[in-house]
Amino acid sequence: MKTLKDVAQRAGVSTGSVSKVLNGHPSVSEVLKSKVDKAIAELNYRPNMVARSLRTKTTNTVAVMVPTSNDPYFVEFFRGVSLALRDIQCVPMLYSMEFNTDIPVNVIHEVLMRGVDGLIVSTYGWEQDIIDELFRISERLPVVSFKRSFPGTSVHSVNIDDQAGMNKAVQHLIKNGHRRIGFLAAGLDLKTGQDRLNGYRTALEASGIEFDDNLVVDCESFQIEAGYNKVQQLLKRYPRPTAIVGANDALAIGAMKYLESRNLRIPEEIAVMGYDDEPLSTLVTPKLSSVAVPVYEMTRRAVQMIDKALKGELHQAVNEMFPTEVIVRDSTDFSAHAEFEFGRFSR
Amino acid sequence: MKTLKDVAQRAGVSTGSVSKVLNGHPSVSEVLKSKVDKAIAELNYRPNMVARSLRTKTTNTVAVMVPTSNDPYFVEFFRGVSLALRDIQCVPMLYSMEFNTDIPVNVIHEVLMRGVDGLIVSTYGWEQDIIDELFRISERLPVVSFKRSFPGTSVHSVNIDDQAGMNKAVQHLIKNGHRRIGFLAAGLDLKTGQDRLNGYRTALEASGIEFDDNLVVDCESFQIEAGYNKVQQLLKRYPRPTAIVGANDALAIGAMKYLESRNLRIPEEIAVMGYDDEPLSTLVTPKLSSVAVPVYEMTRRAVQMIDKALKGELHQAVNEMFPTEVIVRDSTDFSAHAEFEFGRFSR
Repeated sequence: MKTLKDVAQRAGVSTGSVSKVLNGHPSVSEVLKSKVDKAIAELNYRPNMVARSLRTKTTNTVAVMVPTSNDPYFVEFFRGVSLALRDIQCVPMLYSMEFNTDIPVNVIHEVLMRGVDGLIVSTYGWEQDIIDELFRISERLPVVSFKRSFPGTSVHSVNIDDQAGMNKAVQHLIKNGHRRIGFLAAGLDLKTGQDRLNGYRTALEASGIEFDDNLVVDCESFQIEAGYNKVQQLLKRYPRPTAIVGANDALAIGAMKYLESRNLRIPEEIAVMGYDDEPLSTLVTPKLSSVAVPVYEMTRRAVQMIDKALKGELHQAVNEMFPTEVIVRDSTDFSAHAEFEFGRFSR
Repeated sequence: MKTLKDVAQRAGVSTGSVSKVLNGHPSVSEVLKSKVDKAIAELNYRPNMVARSLRTKTTNTVAVMVPTSNDPYFVEFFRGVSLALRDIQCVPMLYSMEFNTDIPVNVIHEVLMRGVDGLIVSTYGWEQDIIDELFRISERLPVVSFKRSFPGTSVHSVNIDDQAGMNKAVQHLIKNGHRRIGFLAAGLDLKTGQDRLNGYRTALEASGIEFDDNLVVDCESFQIEAGYNKVQQLLKRYPRPTAIVGANDALAIGAMKYLESRNLRIPEEIAVMGYDDEPLSTLVTPKLSSVAVPVYEMTRRAVQMIDKALKGELHQAVNEMFPTEVIVRDSTDFSAHAEFEFGRFSR
């Protein structure tokens, strides 16, 4: 087994310098770094052994669990976590459930056997018994839940108020003169889906617009296809709604794609509003108005929580709420002339 | 430590039945499965210990390394690998480099220390010394490279012929009457980027169209923003090109977004063609013609290679080529009336 000293010798530098390189110390010069990297490669040295002993952490790895890898929302989530973990010299291990509800318990065990420092999870779609398992794990290991809080347990969370977010979205439409607003609902068996529907309802009622059951369709999924199919029911209502809100961007985009196929002009004939403000929202034509969720800030905070918990600086579960923001683009306001947002794709 | 027998006892079934459940045997009934799962959860049993001893494999985990998690192409790649691994009862561990070229060597060591059965990697953007490291690893462990072959080494590969693919794309445009065709190049320091440019060139030459340096712009990146910016140079050429080809879909979509901002009609005034046929290609307006790469088939085959190698059925490195296909949509042919392809988003 090669040691830190072997690397230092080979590189012709001190062991302290090698440690600095391994720990990503900001004062490290490019020259020093390349010397050490070269020595590491030549000796087939395993730097983690050192990192491990130099730090209080045991594995420098955090498991990240998402329901699917095929959704831009979770892609953004995972990327945010990856970048934040890098800053604390940790490596993410991604486990994607692909909506298979049998997997999480096995994966949780798998993860624990391999040894990780913490878990950052979206429990979307998990059964209660698996969530109970997560509670047990959170007694031993820092666990941060994304977009779902579990008060009274040891699970930390980063969350948003979906009801308030959707309320603002619908207020925006009402302010633009809409009173017949169709709602593409989804996830009604989950708090997040219920909150979004409630936000729609409370916004209407606050403006003296009666809630009409006929203007709500349960899409049963958050996928584009469901929005495409289910918006057809809303178009049959009389009078026809002048605006459509999707419980997420994919549903709104599905609706847009159907309206496009029917040559209905957006927003002149029907305005369309999404929710989540995924990068896709500026890629479609017209650009989609939506409600921005600060995914990057949330993931950065989630990683901070793990870091603090490992340092023993968190003495009880933290549940932090983040603000949402209505982003007005051309799909609800043709004077918006929203720009295409490159940054969303290159972060 | 709980044993397989404890689980069997608790569930009131035979140890053979427990093994079947743990190995995902097709004959397992829902009732048996739920009994065993319940016992596992109650006993806090770690199924992997058994799976490990029951199989020839040691960890049931395959590391997957991608250059970035923020590119739909690699999202599709990772999802394909995940689904295929599930079929052989393996779990993927995703490591995303986020284009940080310092990371791979450390991650490779990290991965090996944790113990994995194999690696499936995209070496896009890796330095030669890291690739040399990969060669060393491939002597001990099955390694499959995605879209890059290393003949003469122990690294297996699943690959496509980019030159032939791009050649077909440009042929399609020539057949539609285009002779002034602009090319948004990228990755010219890599074989994949060079091959695509060569495919463009050979298609022109085979049709007696002289290759014109002025119609090629090096975008220096495969990102949407680069396409948006660099297409502006092509529009200044005289006579203006009647068609633009992107070295990938993102460059083509960036070009489309710029043309849209200038109110240039696609394809009537300028046709646009992409490459890779990412799911996004049917989401933009007009829908983007592209060259389909069979990512799912390639990932499935990559997992098969790992599986066979672990079973000792592969005695030398396998380099398998997959076919590409030109997909004609509205951005090059306004009579195409391409449908929106849901399947791409829900696979």
